Amino acid sequence: MKFVIIGGDAAGMSAASHAKRSRPDLEVIVLEKTTDVSYSACGMPYIIADKDRNLEDLIVRDAKTFREKQGIQLLTGHRADHLDPLSRTVTGETAEGKGFVLEYDRLLIATGASAIIRDLPGVNLPGVFALKSLEDGRRIKGFIQKNKVKRAVIIGMGYIALEMCEALRTLKIEVEMIKSRPVFLPWMDEKMSGVIKEELGVHAVKLHLGHVIEKIERDEDTFHPVNLKLVCSDLEIECGMILVAMGVKPNSHIVSGTAIKCSVNGAIAVDKRLRTSDKIIYAAGDCADAYHVVTGKKTWIPLALRANMAGRAVADNICDREVSLPGVAGTAVFKVFDLEVARTGLTMEESKKSGFDPEAVVVQTHSRAHAHPGGSDIWVQMIGCRQSKRLLGVQMVGKEGVAHRINAPAVALHNQMTVEEYSHSDLAYAPPFGPVWDPTLTAANQLVKKLKT
Amino acid sequence: MKFVIIGGDAAGMSAASHAKRSRPDLEVIVLEKTTDVSYSACGMPYIIADKDRNLEDLIVRDAKTFREKQGIQLLTGHRADHLDPLSRTVTGETAEGKGFVLEYDRLLIATGASAIIRDLPGVNLPGVFALKSLEDGRRIKGFIQKNKVKRAVIIGMGYIALEMCEALRTLKIEVEMIKSRPVFLPWMDEKMSGVIKEELGVHAVKLHLGHVIEKIERDEDTFHPVNLKLVCSDLEIECGMILVAMGVKPNSHIVSGTAIKCSVNGAIAVDKRLRTSDKIIYAAGDCADAYHVVTGKKTWIPLALRANMAGRAVADNICDREVSLPGVAGTAVFKVFDLEVARTGLTMEESKKSGFDPEAVVVQTHSRAHAHPGGSDIWVQMIGCRQSKRLLGVQMVGKEGVAHRINAPAVALHNQMTVEEYSHSDLAYAPPFGPVWDPTLTAANQLVKKLKT
Repeated sequence: MKFVIIGGDAAGMSAASHAKRSRPDLEVIVLEKTTDVSYSACGMPYIIADKDRNLEDLIVRDAKTFREKQGIQLLTGHRADHLDPLSRTVTGETAEGKGFVLEYDRLLIATGASAIIRDLPGVNLPGVFALKSLEDGRRIKGFIQKNKVKRAVIIGMGYIALEMCEALRTLKIEVEMIKSRPVFLPWMDEKMSGVIKEELGVHAVKLHLGHVIEKIERDEDTFHPVNLKLVCSDLEIECGMILVAMGVKPNSHIVSGTAIKCSVNGAIAVDKRLRTSDKIIYAAGDCADAYHVVTGKKTWIPLALRANMAGRAVADNICDREVSLPGVAGTAVFKVFDLEVARTGLTMEESKKSGFDPEAVVVQTHSRAHAHPGGSDIWVQMIGCRQSKRLLGVQMVGKEGVAHRINAPAVALHNQMTVEEYSHSDLAYAPPFGPVWDPTLTAANQLVKKLKT
Repeated sequence: MKFVIIGGDAAGMSAASHAKRSRPDLEVIVLEKTTDVSYSACGMPYIIADKDRNLEDLIVRDAKTFREKQGIQLLTGHRADHLDPLSRTVTGETAEGKGFVLEYDRLLIATGASAIIRDLPGVNLPGVFALKSLEDGRRIKGFIQKNKVKRAVIIGMGYIALEMCEALRTLKIEVEMIKSRPVFLPWMDEKMSGVIKEELGVHAVKLHLGHVIEKIERDEDTFHPVNLKLVCSDLEIECGMILVAMGVKPNSHIVSGTAIKCSVNGAIAVDKRLRTSDKIIYAAGDCADAYHVVTGKKTWIPLALRANMAGRAVADNICDREVSLPGVAGTAVFKVFDLEVARTGLTMEESKKSGFDPEAVVVQTHSRAHAHPGGSDIWVQMIGCRQSKRLLGVQMVGKEGVAHRINAPAVALHNQMTVEEYSHSDLAYAPPFGPVWDPTLTAANQLVKKLKT
């Protein structure tokens, strides 16, 4: 049986490796348009920040290992352009401009996502970047080194924008962040997003909210090798580099013109076994949708663990070990300077939109026990439903003990626990690691009361 | 209504505070035999280790606040000796030797646990201690300071023994640990307990396993103010101090002679609403038993969070807000030098005894992402059941990222998840905080495979 995979990153290579391990007789062919496979994209900001390391450090397993040790036919420089479900073929072109046609018995679309680049005048000028592929990372790192960038502007204030903000400040580059919408982190409770704002202030990051960006210009008047100007209606910022970090969109164009269905944000629709509407074609990773374990409805939350998990599940399903993934809780964490920021489940806004009647508490508690030295504040927002009493979502900010703490409520969401049931969870306690009531339990206790009134 | 509480620590004072907050009209009377109420007993090793702090720092709320601000009748120096469920009275004696009789409408027994002190010759010599009450902590700290202890012996190798080992080494006291049984941490996988042994070795702690202790002698020949000798059949250790940390037993003697039932280890048996077999008498904290969420059977695992949670639940039940606690998962964490050690659920041994058919994996993975600087090894043992495929228990050791990581599997145990269901949990990922597959997910993936073969 011939298993063809389009895309050689997290989902694609997880599927390829796991399928080949499970069924060594399987013919596994991976089409990857670039020359980079299986790298930890999420690590790019940290490599960019570190003068002693390079992007290649992020490669988990090299092409040679996949080919020679694992027996996977890994075809790099192969761009898949067209899919014909009727003839079960994928056609495309190699980096050398040579066309190819491949038949498949089973197909996995793992084409990932692309950075959203607004159609902005000047967006293609040298010094303007997005960060998605390893090649983007190499270009940014090279550019910074070569041009001795003094000031950078980041368009957008999402996870990647904030991680890159920290990376650039580590390199002593001045950073200004800008977005067109007026609210800093609209998904977050204002008090808690205020903690992050404050942290950015401590690190001398300037925030510009609610500015409509008109264009990017190159200033020819100066002596600097590259001097860019970001022009808004009411603001101009000069800088040596601009990072466009306005989010990503699913790479689902390969299914356009076929009967394969798409859903939220244009992501390829899959069932819990990761099958598209064509049952021998699977999709996994950032190009595919997922069920949300809280709403039970389709969502699109492109994150690395889901990509790996979905890739693995596709392999199992192809190898006749039926695996059904329940879906995602939207659990995420990022670091911004000394803060850990985490979330799982729905926000207040999302809860309302999904038909819940949400109620929230925000508690400020501590990362270690009463009287234990060190430690710092932890803020927890917990959201529950007035009708069903279910836990809907949790957000957390603090300097320590946030990143892994979010996982207990995440598992609670997978199990549709009520807030009260969660509040009775037997969690670990020792003074160096937290108060006797874990911050999420303190929030749950308060929310239980609020949901009863 | 008169709500009488015997015992003024975690469970008792949680119940008193919560009840008074919920129903200010309630007459709440607490009988505490010592003068210390509401302190973080778990913090004692850290205070003993710190020359700049004293045991009083552990008092969460003082007696005056409870009395004057909260309106609780807190009777310190009141030892309850006898309970008569027929006349609904508690009788006892004050520190001044005055008898008292108190009637109750509702009673909470929150008498805690006591250190197990073997009936060993010499166990009452000066310089031989147990660590349970705040007064024990004061005596140990005072003794160390006054006598400039150079070497200490700890009898026992449980949580408290190991935490005190670290505390004493912090004070530059030589530490030798001894136990009669031959296995260091019998509840733990050998490879993982080996990691802890190694850490103890790095900190020059000597371990003596499988030595039957015969007596403690005081050596009068030397010039030292106190010089003790621990005598075993095949070993003698001279030291300035001995800590007996052989575990604890429930203080349930108040119910002897009544019809109130006890269960595991002699702990007072309670239902999920914390009622004893006498439905107006409750028990909570270290003196009471609990249901185990994995086995569904009674267990006795005295830990601080359960005591607080149970106290709070008793108050709710007394104030007519019915609360039912599901039980405990046996989730615990402790720190020993640079290691975090955590567990939840059943061990292999406990799984077998409870009628499961357990299978386990041990994985060694990393606390941060591939290519992320810093980080250290994490070992995870995960246990599942061959028949039911349920997750039964998890243990973890590592230098970072262990303490809070145990809580996700703990919540999974509360929900009777299978190992495979847990392996599909959407947990948080960012390179500074873990690999893309959380170590518990890597263990789960491997265990799923093993459970299928």
